[in-house]
Amino acid sequence: MKEAILLIACPDRVGIIARIAHFVFERGGNILSLDQHADPETGMFFARFRWDLSALSIHPADLSEAFAPLAKEFRADWKLELLTPRCSRLILFVSKYAHCLNDLVWRQREGELKGEIVAVISNHPDLESHCTQYGLPFHHIPVTPATKASAETEQRKLIDHYGANLIVLARYMQILSAGFVNAYPAQIINIHHSFLPAFIGGNPYRQARDRGVKIIGATSHYATEDLDEGPIIEQDIIRISHRDSLEELVCKGRDLEKVVLARAVRAHLERRILVHGHKTIVFG
Amino acid sequence: MKEAILLIACPDRVGIIARIAHFVFERGGNILSLDQHADPETGMFFARFRWDLSALSIHPADLSEAFAPLAKEFRADWKLELLTPRCSRLILFVSKYAHCLNDLVWRQREGELKGEIVAVISNHPDLESHCTQYGLPFHHIPVTPATKASAETEQRKLIDHYGANLIVLARYMQILSAGFVNAYPAQIINIHHSFLPAFIGGNPYRQARDRGVKIIGATSHYATEDLDEGPIIEQDIIRISHRDSLEELVCKGRDLEKVVLARAVRAHLERRILVHGHKTIVFG
Amino acid sequence: MKEAILLIACPDRVGIIARIAHFVFERGGNILSLDQHADPETGMFFARFRWDLSALSIHPADLSEAFAPLAKEFRADWKLELLTPRCSRLILFVSKYAHCLNDLVWRQREGELKGEIVAVISNHPDLESHCTQYGLPFHHIPVTPATKASAETEQRKLIDHYGANLIVLARYMQILSAGFVNAYPAQIINIHHSFLPAFIGGNPYRQARDRGVKIIGATSHYATEDLDEGPIIEQDIIRISHRDSLEELVCKGRDLEKVVLARAVRAHLERRILVHGHKTIVFG
Amino acid sequence: MKEAILLIACPDRVGIIARIAHFVFERGGNILSLDQHADPETGMFFARFRWDLSALSIHPADLSEAFAPLAKEFRADWKLELLTPRCSRLILFVSKYAHCLNDLVWRQREGELKGEIVAVISNHPDLESHCTQYGLPFHHIPVTPATKASAETEQRKLIDHYGANLIVLARYMQILSAGFVNAYPAQIINIHHSFLPAFIGGNPYRQARDRGVKIIGATSHYATEDLDEGPIIEQDIIRISHRDSLEELVCKGRDLEKVVLARAVRAHLERRILVHGHKTIVFG
Repeated sequence: MKEAILLIACPDRVGIIARIAHFVFERGGNILSLDQHADPETGMFFARFRWDLSALSIHPADLSEAFAPLAKEFRADWKLELLTPRCSRLILFVSKYAHCLNDLVWRQREGELKGEIVAVISNHPDLESHCTQYGLPFHHIPVTPATKASAETEQRKLIDHYGANLIVLARYMQILSAGFVNAYPAQIINIHHSFLPAFIGGNPYRQARDRGVKIIGATSHYATEDLDEGPIIEQDIIRISHRDSLEELVCKGRDLEKVVLARAVRAHLERRILVHGHKTIVFG
Repeated sequence: MKEAILLIACPDRVGIIARIAHFVFERGGNILSLDQHADPETGMFFARFRWDLSALSIHPADLSEAFAPLAKEFRADWKLELLTPRCSRLILFVSKYAHCLNDLVWRQREGELKGEIVAVISNHPDLESHCTQYGLPFHHIPVTPATKASAETEQRKLIDHYGANLIVLARYMQILSAGFVNAYPAQIINIHHSFLPAFIGGNPYRQARDRGVKIIGATSHYATEDLDEGPIIEQDIIRISHRDSLEELVCKGRDLEKVVLARAVRAHLERRILVHGHKTIVFG
Repeated sequence: MKEAILLIACPDRVGIIARIAHFVFERGGNILSLDQHADPETGMFFARFRWDLSALSIHPADLSEAFAPLAKEFRADWKLELLTPRCSRLILFVSKYAHCLNDLVWRQREGELKGEIVAVISNHPDLESHCTQYGLPFHHIPVTPATKASAETEQRKLIDHYGANLIVLARYMQILSAGFVNAYPAQIINIHHSFLPAFIGGNPYRQARDRGVKIIGATSHYATEDLDEGPIIEQDIIRISHRDSLEELVCKGRDLEKVVLARAVRAHLERRILVHGHKTIVFG
Repeated sequence: MKEAILLIACPDRVGIIARIAHFVFERGGNILSLDQHADPETGMFFARFRWDLSALSIHPADLSEAFAPLAKEFRADWKLELLTPRCSRLILFVSKYAHCLNDLVWRQREGELKGEIVAVISNHPDLESHCTQYGLPFHHIPVTPATKASAETEQRKLIDHYGANLIVLARYMQILSAGFVNAYPAQIINIHHSFLPAFIGGNPYRQARDRGVKIIGATSHYATEDLDEGPIIEQDIIRISHRDSLEELVCKGRDLEKVVLARAVRAHLERRILVHGHKTIVFG
């Protein structure tokens, strides 16, 4: 089934829902779900409308143009997309760790992901045979301080080549340049192996053990220029104790990283995430 | 601030949201929040509309009458209420345990409850001094098999007397008759000290320990004629181990019972619960 | 490093720990960890001693014989095992679902499992190519009511053939006979896709949705003659809501099943589980 | 029942458990529980022995002296205490928030605390009537920058006067001086309303909301000279979303603070906490 999804943020005022619902209704759309949030602190209105296109009276491709005048009147940030089984194309960036890669591939096979993993890029050759087994194109692009710029150029060419519209940093252990990150706003999802903003930076499990915390976490977020400061999409935690060695923390962490990254990717693919400033609204 | 809240369930069809949103809009109401759920399995539509009355063009008391024709057209089960700080009046039923009573009283003082606890009824005299300290009327109505019918008559008189519209069984250790329960549909909230449907019946912590489960839970639900079968509102759990004695389970259980009951009561007071058949939809 | 692990259950009395610790000490063993639990209700003492063998003054293979007189004096149920990297051999029973199989294989590759998966048996051919890719022997043994007895004979031959000492029912959708189950006491781990004892029997996600619970769970337990009544090893839960379709419940359930089964298998492999009656003590 | 509890930390070596268990055994003590942890990273051994005194062959008051030679041989940090129902005396420091105070008082009445709350000190008069109702002495000691030193002198006199050996900062909104804190090492428990080390400093719920985290937490720790850097005893979290206003975060936070503080206090009273450096080992 084809669906349209509208994500919209605008200053709150009387009648927004009625007007948009009417817009959908008079074009023969049937609203399948509607999530809305008004923030009294900022006076902003946020919503996600999802509607069925089967009885639409205009061509779906014309929906955005038709909606533009209303959006202008509301002074809205908005995006109206047609959702098809293959409209999302994921490219995974990895290094040496396989767990997030495996997890996403298996979720795709189970039908959990509304999108298609089209290729894998890595700065190390280690996971090539994995990807080959999965039937996934694998591109080894080594990165050194000296070659970083050219490596990113090559990466961007591959993203274009595959028509990817979501980049998943599935434990990619390199920092991307500001230029790269800014070229894909809210299109790069990273998994950080700590409960941000705690333990920013390298080796968070070591930091957690040294500090003696009783809980560790993982955080998925959109990548932004400021490392570890991007809009948080999802977080989860697990309880630890003095018995857990560093190795055990890493093991518990893998379970967290997989599930937290997967939830974030799924929310993105289902167009349930609205980014506003440096925060997200993730509709249920 | 005065608000109106509409809870509605009806067969799904095109245009319901647009029609209701327009109904609110043309009477000068501003929609503050809108939660909606369509169940593909049953073809039912469920929603909660909450709107501001400050610029309403008709008298708030006339809203229900104005909405009735639309509801009829939708063949809807619905309820439209005006929410004021004091529109909900709670009567607590207790026995000997104080923890849920204390918890609810303190939440009211913190301003967490959109309602007022007006009285306490107990089949035991133990908590009288508590209630007196809190400035709450306390009514001791002993219950024996022989006096149960007359006790319930007395209880119902008190409910009428206090104008209570929510009965909270805050660890009340008596079973209410079908007649009593049916007189207050979706107006009696019970806390069951187990993760229903596990460990139905008496002494669930003992049952849990005997079965060797690794997690215990608590369940709040609307009371219905079939004991422990009413629509579930909220559940939560806590991890246990072989180290936990029965006494420790009871202690962990108290923490669960308090928070699970409080969440259910808060959801009810905020009119976030829609009961459909023997299940609930609790809007966020 | 080679280690010895003693699991012991006996009536509690003064001096047990001192006596056992002295037994280890006087043979040059260094206690690496000691977990102990005394249950006041039953008067039983339970413990797990783990010690290093590097400076042992007797041959490790003679430890059990040396300990026997002490155990007899304590009237103990006990087991003393030498733990080596390959002392545990797992055989997985599967049907059509791949997620638990994949998960366990990947955990083995990450080094999380103190044991080796040696083969896979299935009543369906679907996962054969999976297993081949993983380099795992795959045996397809169809099961019908008529062939069940002979199928089990074949399964038991394979278990013998591979020298397997742990059978993991990784979403195996057949009921094993009492004879089969009793042949491997506390050596068969099952994953049940519900929070036992809730939703015993078939299709628990459907049952959970029909009952309207707010939390679903998964339970790993040792298989016993009484289906779904075996000693529980591990349980975990995830929160659900009215928004979750049956398909979504199944998806959330997969994540639970994987992690709950893996925790149980790891605890078994590390000899952290003491079965007493129909309950377990899982040391930390 | 009277019990002795030994908390001990020393360099690991062969035979410690055997020696200590023998020490207890030969004096007629019955070990009720024994928790032990060896940290391979630091080579340290940590343990908690708890034993029954009913058949002890020496005077309980002489136990520490009797154990001293063994402790010296092990180069141990250690503490041997006789646990009686009234051996712990708690003094609560509060400001204006009542929830942690109420919670601890009610837990004491339920019998959850192995200790006695003997008095309350506050820098504000607000909670005086509370304390009076509970029958608790209340001391109002205002604190300004100018009077801080003399206020602390007064506080310390009261601590002496009441013979308090545990100071619980139950949402006390003043920073204690290094001199004060250092006078009570591992005897002051604070509750910080964030998931440390995230959101150190003031107004953590506001910080959490501004950062857009999806989970908030609370942390109980021993107070040290470095604010928010003391050894962590217990942490817990709750899930939040964009729907939660700051007020709602504070409300959810209260539930966390109560339970996290209570768990820390209970662990301390049961002598289950071993402080080593700036970390804790909390035995189960």
